[in-house]
Amino acid sequence: MAFLMNAWYCAAWTEELETEDRFARKLLGKSVLIFKKQDGTYGAIGNACPHRFAPLNKGPREGDTFICPYHGLEFDTNGRCTRNPNEGGTIPRAARVPSYPLVERDSALWIWMGDPKKADLDLIPDFSMIRAREGWNVVRGHHVTKANYELVMDNLMDRTHVQFLHPLLKLMGEQPENFQRIQSVEQIGNMIWDYHGEVNCTKYPLLDALWPEAPDIVENYFDVRWEAPSNMLLNAGTVEVGTNREVGVHLPMSNLLTPADEFSTHYFWSQARDKNIGREEMDEMIKAGVAHTFQNEDGEMVADCMEMMGTNDLMRLNPVMLPGDAAAVRARRILSSMIAAEQAEAGLV
Amino acid sequence: MAFLMNAWYCAAWTEELETEDRFARKLLGKSVLIFKKQDGTYGAIGNACPHRFAPLNKGPREGDTFICPYHGLEFDTNGRCTRNPNEGGTIPRAARVPSYPLVERDSALWIWMGDPKKADLDLIPDFSMIRAREGWNVVRGHHVTKANYELVMDNLMDRTHVQFLHPLLKLMGEQPENFQRIQSVEQIGNMIWDYHGEVNCTKYPLLDALWPEAPDIVENYFDVRWEAPSNMLLNAGTVEVGTNREVGVHLPMSNLLTPADEFSTHYFWSQARDKNIGREEMDEMIKAGVAHTFQNEDGEMVADCMEMMGTNDLMRLNPVMLPGDAAAVRARRILSSMIAAEQAEAGLV
Amino acid sequence: MAFLMNAWYCAAWTEELETEDRFARKLLGKSVLIFKKQDGTYGAIGNACPHRFAPLNKGPREGDTFICPYHGLEFDTNGRCTRNPNEGGTIPRAARVPSYPLVERDSALWIWMGDPKKADLDLIPDFSMIRAREGWNVVRGHHVTKANYELVMDNLMDRTHVQFLHPLLKLMGEQPENFQRIQSVEQIGNMIWDYHGEVNCTKYPLLDALWPEAPDIVENYFDVRWEAPSNMLLNAGTVEVGTNREVGVHLPMSNLLTPADEFSTHYFWSQARDKNIGREEMDEMIKAGVAHTFQNEDGEMVADCMEMMGTNDLMRLNPVMLPGDAAAVRARRILSSMIAAEQAEAGLV
Repeated sequence: MAFLMNAWYCAAWTEELETEDRFARKLLGKSVLIFKKQDGTYGAIGNACPHRFAPLNKGPREGDTFICPYHGLEFDTNGRCTRNPNEGGTIPRAARVPSYPLVERDSALWIWMGDPKKADLDLIPDFSMIRAREGWNVVRGHHVTKANYELVMDNLMDRTHVQFLHPLLKLMGEQPENFQRIQSVEQIGNMIWDYHGEVNCTKYPLLDALWPEAPDIVENYFDVRWEAPSNMLLNAGTVEVGTNREVGVHLPMSNLLTPADEFSTHYFWSQARDKNIGREEMDEMIKAGVAHTFQNEDGEMVADCMEMMGTNDLMRLNPVMLPGDAAAVRARRILSSMIAAEQAEAGLV
Repeated sequence: MAFLMNAWYCAAWTEELETEDRFARKLLGKSVLIFKKQDGTYGAIGNACPHRFAPLNKGPREGDTFICPYHGLEFDTNGRCTRNPNEGGTIPRAARVPSYPLVERDSALWIWMGDPKKADLDLIPDFSMIRAREGWNVVRGHHVTKANYELVMDNLMDRTHVQFLHPLLKLMGEQPENFQRIQSVEQIGNMIWDYHGEVNCTKYPLLDALWPEAPDIVENYFDVRWEAPSNMLLNAGTVEVGTNREVGVHLPMSNLLTPADEFSTHYFWSQARDKNIGREEMDEMIKAGVAHTFQNEDGEMVADCMEMMGTNDLMRLNPVMLPGDAAAVRARRILSSMIAAEQAEAGLV
Repeated sequence: MAFLMNAWYCAAWTEELETEDRFARKLLGKSVLIFKKQDGTYGAIGNACPHRFAPLNKGPREGDTFICPYHGLEFDTNGRCTRNPNEGGTIPRAARVPSYPLVERDSALWIWMGDPKKADLDLIPDFSMIRAREGWNVVRGHHVTKANYELVMDNLMDRTHVQFLHPLLKLMGEQPENFQRIQSVEQIGNMIWDYHGEVNCTKYPLLDALWPEAPDIVENYFDVRWEAPSNMLLNAGTVEVGTNREVGVHLPMSNLLTPADEFSTHYFWSQARDKNIGREEMDEMIKAGVAHTFQNEDGEMVADCMEMMGTNDLMRLNPVMLPGDAAAVRARRILSSMIAAEQAEAGLV
């Protein structure tokens, strides 16, 4: 199972480099060293020393120099070996590790692990609505899900499971007669918008904390924007019916999936809100709640599914499809044809 | 390594469904949901929802309806999807899980995982002598042995290891001059009877508990009846010599092996006795003793052997054969040719 | 990845058979039973009973007879089945396990797992300088490193990593102007000598304990003698400059590597010294220090490298080579061509 290489993936939250000056992370099956440079910008290089494949993250760092813990080869932030401290001291021409473009955008560090010449900054997906801004509080998290990233993607692009898997987000009781569910899928180039709305619906338990003054009957919206490979904006909120989504609580969210390997997925999420802002205990509560939902409810479920599947390739098992899968199936098809095109271009197939 | 599909395997003891109303168990490599229906009969269906392969046993049950924990698809006891609670609500034609015939007989639940049309109840092996009946106490147990089921079968069809592996069942001291060991193997169709007897032998340590009034010199018998795939009756006991097996303690036992997969085996055993009946502490003692023998003595040994073998196929290693293997070798041959015939019929080979 | 079969490997330290009369050890992928015979000599046979592959080390031993724990087959120290205690009692002709030449030399037990006819005692590498002798103390150790043995071999034949990986052995501070590093590699038949010297160098931290009276500026030597498959003498010491290596502390060491399998390596080491002798606490200190260095510093590093490599074959990854790798690369080439020749002779390639 090949990954899409010429694409931006989230490698880390910038805040992860506030407490550590570097760390190694497995991304697309490769160990990558991620760091903040002396000048405040960020960088990423291959973490395996080209000499004996020792992990560079376990060696010392001096300024912008990373020193192999095994034989002391020194590498700069571009992955070039700049010094061989050993007898002779020659630096072999091949002594370099890959350098990966890594840029900060909207509190995330975006990495490009394909052909660096194609690393167009304009291709970084827009998550500006999640960035820190006046009137909004944002919380973020990262965890690893033990499942292939496409299964996590399916989960995120499917609204129907919420009613079964998430007790705190489940609509309570019977729905009014004028309850209306709205759903449509729109493809714009290689981007998918999956629109969902619940008009005139009852509240879900968590709403009491998010928007205590909410009326009894509300409108929910959760529009998912997917971009290859697996970066999703969940534009969600709960509003007073008929206010054109204006009066209420708005909860846009980013869900950025980066394969660690074929069997596990880095899950970076952030959630902004425009109510209860400036309250730190509310930040903590939401952070813990979202983490619980994604790790223990969704995360366990997709891991269970993957274990039952016994493979990382859903399609080989001829799954039954439901209408709620429409958006995810389209996303899988787009992704699949992008990967095929990339492999063909690289002469790999 | 293919399993014999058109055959009855023990899936569970009925008593396992007294404390739980359903559970999942891996049988022949597949996850199976086993349950008691509202009408008191039993059923078994595939445990993987055909939509995303979520485990049905982790979802709620309402009456005779099993609800997928992920998207709420509902299945009846025949594995048919009877409701899709999501928008649209259509039930895809392919939305069904396999249904497996499961019938109660002699306190066991027997499952047929091959072609349901061939599931002839008359083929369920007869273990009526183990069922609860006047004058007898029966104890039962279940554990998983970390070895291929054929290795466990070999172990059960071989009396000679008892003297080396089981201290409590080992004949003590020197045998009298008129000691006689009797052994023969008989094949009746695809059934094998492996007869063993020890006439005029010393006692084994456990006999003091089983039959305190036993004379010093006794007769042991342990006749094993094997039927494909791996269900064995051990008709055993210790009697006064020359009483035509009448005076003494009779200990018929069932040993029902069902592959969980190629590397581990469900072991269902039951033991009846006609002495010390009605004493609950004796039940507990025997249950613990048999479980210890099978799990820690036989179970560890076959797991050790499998680890040393490094494969699940004994025959590939050209093992040295001893006379005591005669019955097991015949059983393996019958089983092997039944599997080959089944594969050929299914066009698989 | 094939192992060199016609070669002497260290199987154990003789002292390991002082506390136990036998034990099983995995060597070259096979489980081997290693024992001391009644007559005081040593022996090794295959540990898997040829009947059902039960581990002989778990059975009883009576004199020089090893009894299978499963069915009681008895084996002599040559691996021949000498008794079948079961009904019939015939001993099948094929009932034997391999017997491996195992000889004591210099406190080590050397095993030959290839063609026994080629097991020439003169091929056992000479480690006489490590044996117990007047004026010297020797400590020994054994551990298992979670890496292919060739990676451990590379580590031992490379002096340059010491400065980076081993804080207690690292030269302190700046080196004097007349500091001189000497290095050369010599191949004598299939033996390699890798000579290293540091003349007019500062001390390393551990020297204070090894040779408290050492001058501030010293000479270090560490000449590595490699012989196939992976037995190395490290002839090392620290001396007063210009005394022809006479005045100082001499620390010859054996490093004997025996593959457990492709992914893990038995590491047998011993270290002799001619200072601080007869002090038991010094023995303990050195033993703990060497064990720590090999297990936690070198051992962790090569295990890390192997994990990063994701394979046991370094060369497939086209590693960058440094001058310090010269000896190790030669050793790998010799070993590789010896294995190829052996495979060709055996008709395996």
